[in-house]
Amino acid sequence: MTLNVFSHNIIYILIMETLYLIIINVILSVFAFFFTYNIIPHLKSMFISANLYGKDLNKKSDNKIPEAFGVVTGCTFLITIFLLIPLIFGRHMLQNDTTLFPHSEFVEMLAALLSICCMLLLGFADDVLNLRWRHKLLLPTIASLPLLVVYYINFNSTTIIVPKPFRDIFGVSVNLGLLYYVYMGMLAVFCTNAINILAGINGLETGQSLIIAISILIFNVIELSGDCAQAHLFSLHFIIPFISVTFALYPSEVFVGDTYCYFAGMTFAVVGILGHFSKTMLLFFLPQIFNFLYSIPQLFHFINCPRHRIPRLDKYGTLSPSYTECDNNISTIGKMCLKLFSIFKIIHIEEKSDGNIKCNNLTLINLCLLKIGPTNEKILTIILLFVQVSFDMTMLYTFVTHFFFQIVCSLFAFVIRYPLASLFYDV
Amino acid sequence: MTLNVFSHNIIYILIMETLYLIIINVILSVFAFFFTYNIIPHLKSMFISANLYGKDLNKKSDNKIPEAFGVVTGCTFLITIFLLIPLIFGRHMLQNDTTLFPHSEFVEMLAALLSICCMLLLGFADDVLNLRWRHKLLLPTIASLPLLVVYYINFNSTTIIVPKPFRDIFGVSVNLGLLYYVYMGMLAVFCTNAINILAGINGLETGQSLIIAISILIFNVIELSGDCAQAHLFSLHFIIPFISVTFALYPSEVFVGDTYCYFAGMTFAVVGILGHFSKTMLLFFLPQIFNFLYSIPQLFHFINCPRHRIPRLDKYGTLSPSYTECDNNISTIGKMCLKLFSIFKIIHIEEKSDGNIKCNNLTLINLCLLKIGPTNEKILTIILLFVQVSFDMTMLYTFVTHFFFQIVCSLFAFVIRYPLASLFYDV
Repeated sequence: MTLNVFSHNIIYILIMETLYLIIINVILSVFAFFFTYNIIPHLKSMFISANLYGKDLNKKSDNKIPEAFGVVTGCTFLITIFLLIPLIFGRHMLQNDTTLFPHSEFVEMLAALLSICCMLLLGFADDVLNLRWRHKLLLPTIASLPLLVVYYINFNSTTIIVPKPFRDIFGVSVNLGLLYYVYMGMLAVFCTNAINILAGINGLETGQSLIIAISILIFNVIELSGDCAQAHLFSLHFIIPFISVTFALYPSEVFVGDTYCYFAGMTFAVVGILGHFSKTMLLFFLPQIFNFLYSIPQLFHFINCPRHRIPRLDKYGTLSPSYTECDNNISTIGKMCLKLFSIFKIIHIEEKSDGNIKCNNLTLINLCLLKIGPTNEKILTIILLFVQVSFDMTMLYTFVTHFFFQIVCSLFAFVIRYPLASLFYDV
Repeated sequence: MTLNVFSHNIIYILIMETLYLIIINVILSVFAFFFTYNIIPHLKSMFISANLYGKDLNKKSDNKIPEAFGVVTGCTFLITIFLLIPLIFGRHMLQNDTTLFPHSEFVEMLAALLSICCMLLLGFADDVLNLRWRHKLLLPTIASLPLLVVYYINFNSTTIIVPKPFRDIFGVSVNLGLLYYVYMGMLAVFCTNAINILAGINGLETGQSLIIAISILIFNVIELSGDCAQAHLFSLHFIIPFISVTFALYPSEVFVGDTYCYFAGMTFAVVGILGHFSKTMLLFFLPQIFNFLYSIPQLFHFINCPRHRIPRLDKYGTLSPSYTECDNNISTIGKMCLKLFSIFKIIHIEEKSDGNIKCNNLTLINLCLLKIGPTNEKILTIILLFVQVSFDMTMLYTFVTHFFFQIVCSLFAFVIRYPLASLFYDV
């Protein structure tokens, strides 16, 4: 019985500590929201006079809209977490015995911040300098190196559970070893670029990031009751401020730029890797994964890829799919891709009189326009975000049902355990 | 005797390990040098087309010179250290026992990189957006927070040795406690801005940083034989790549921008704080400290401060001091400063017919021009760098003589110990 009281006490302390950490995080994040929200209008002129502005290609007006505002949210995000660090680790710091300090947690925090800060720098440099593709692939890989080193020293668990259909071939679990690190490195590159290539209409970058972030938040909160509570708490430290600064960005009329996409992508990659749910996280990225797969023929230049693949603004003020033209001698792989897409009816191909082929630019946005016809920009954004929400919520639903099933089982066990126990034991 | 052999073995292993770490660092840094050196010409057009260029105000030509190239060196510096991390910690990672991993060293490395990366971002943002002064003071303070947390958990030694003249008042040592952290935070702000305000003529930013870095390098190498070898080895991990990427920048005709100054300053602050020689490091900053003190009346707006305080290009193609005009009702503190400087004869004041006061802009560069008369830009740079070298070498000289005195004593003890010992003991 003493043991029972003792373990109840420990659980109580753990719950209170988790609550404390979440509450200070929320408080700081609310401050971060108001700070970001208020500072953005003041900084607009600064960005425009630095030539960091664009014209909205999807609208008829010629207003200068400041660009690359992701750097502002990124900085307020970093500042929030910098201020959070002493609060999170404060009680460990006040202990005289430094050997008790949770070095491995602190290392994770710093490595995560380092990777995010690097991507913020890369994104801002991309917005200002228009970097080449090789930089966009090479630099995130290198920036994820510290993350992988931290993963190696703190967990180094490279065994994955094989999904049921493949268990006959691979067995129940497979140790991927080095391959798992390659996968995580590629995950960082994928996440940073995936949000960036599903962009181009107003509010889509922030919208999808917000939905993914909220999905991760709900998933983390659910999993707080599980075995890996610590890892999910770690993820919450990042996701809560992220959501708040993104919300601050949403209503302001600015372009967030590649800076924001890279920043958001790396934040997701970081919490996925160090929170041990990188595979689950990919499930929240299904629209982005589809968009990436769909874009491959253009990204790898199997068929012609223009600099901008955003939809075309037609004379009625609505958006229509944009097209690209390929001369007849496109590569065999390119032809195969086009044929494959034709079979699934997710492409619109026209053969022109001179033998050239004209097809829609291969993005989810254009595909959506192809299916629903010319659409107003706002409605298009809402539809695409709705797709994202429905996918992510489906994923969450499976977790939640699984979770509630567990809860019901636990409660059931709890309710019948004590009355039953009192029958057999002196309490 | 066995103990002696054993301890000799440990010393041998330690020396070999240190040598190994320095050698791989040098090899990677040589690669970083060639990479940076080769990539800079390719990137020039990218910077110019992004509107990141300036005109050389100290020359008559109108060539567009790309600006903010510090971001390139900063990135190659970060990449070098990212690649260095697995090599430095590789042998610990291959041990199966993760409790043996030197978490505290790794934490220092990450915190240092994080602070440097933040400053790189801030510097680049400053070059692009022309940030305000409050950002330039606030952001370095916050960026140094992780550094202070690391210092707290790894060392938390806030006791300083009092210099001899003050020992009657304060005693031999004083525990500064929290004040020491305030000092370190201010050191980070000082270092990042000190190099930036002693700039404006070609090659001075990189030149002074190079001299300071080489002085730190020599100091670290000397101290490798001392008690704090680990801390000085840590400093070398950063200083060697820093020197190599700076060398790569030197001959190329680009402006390094605030980016480089912030990056260099934070690198120095980081190695000074985590290498435990922050006070020694300030000795290498004497010209910068003088320049800062001399600039105070303008920086704090006691007297008028124009946006640029660089020297004036006269019609003969040489540089002369630039002047600022203040109306007669300048603040009392401003008047006191001017009087003080007049007493030391380090200012040139003219009273104009309308009662206004005209004095040279208060920078070391203008003061130097005041003393030696109109000078060619190159010669002025050489003179100012010579001042830096002579100060830093004087400081080093005192260390070296102290060090050699110790070596001579040790050798003397070593030589006489064994013959003497053999007289008294059986060996």
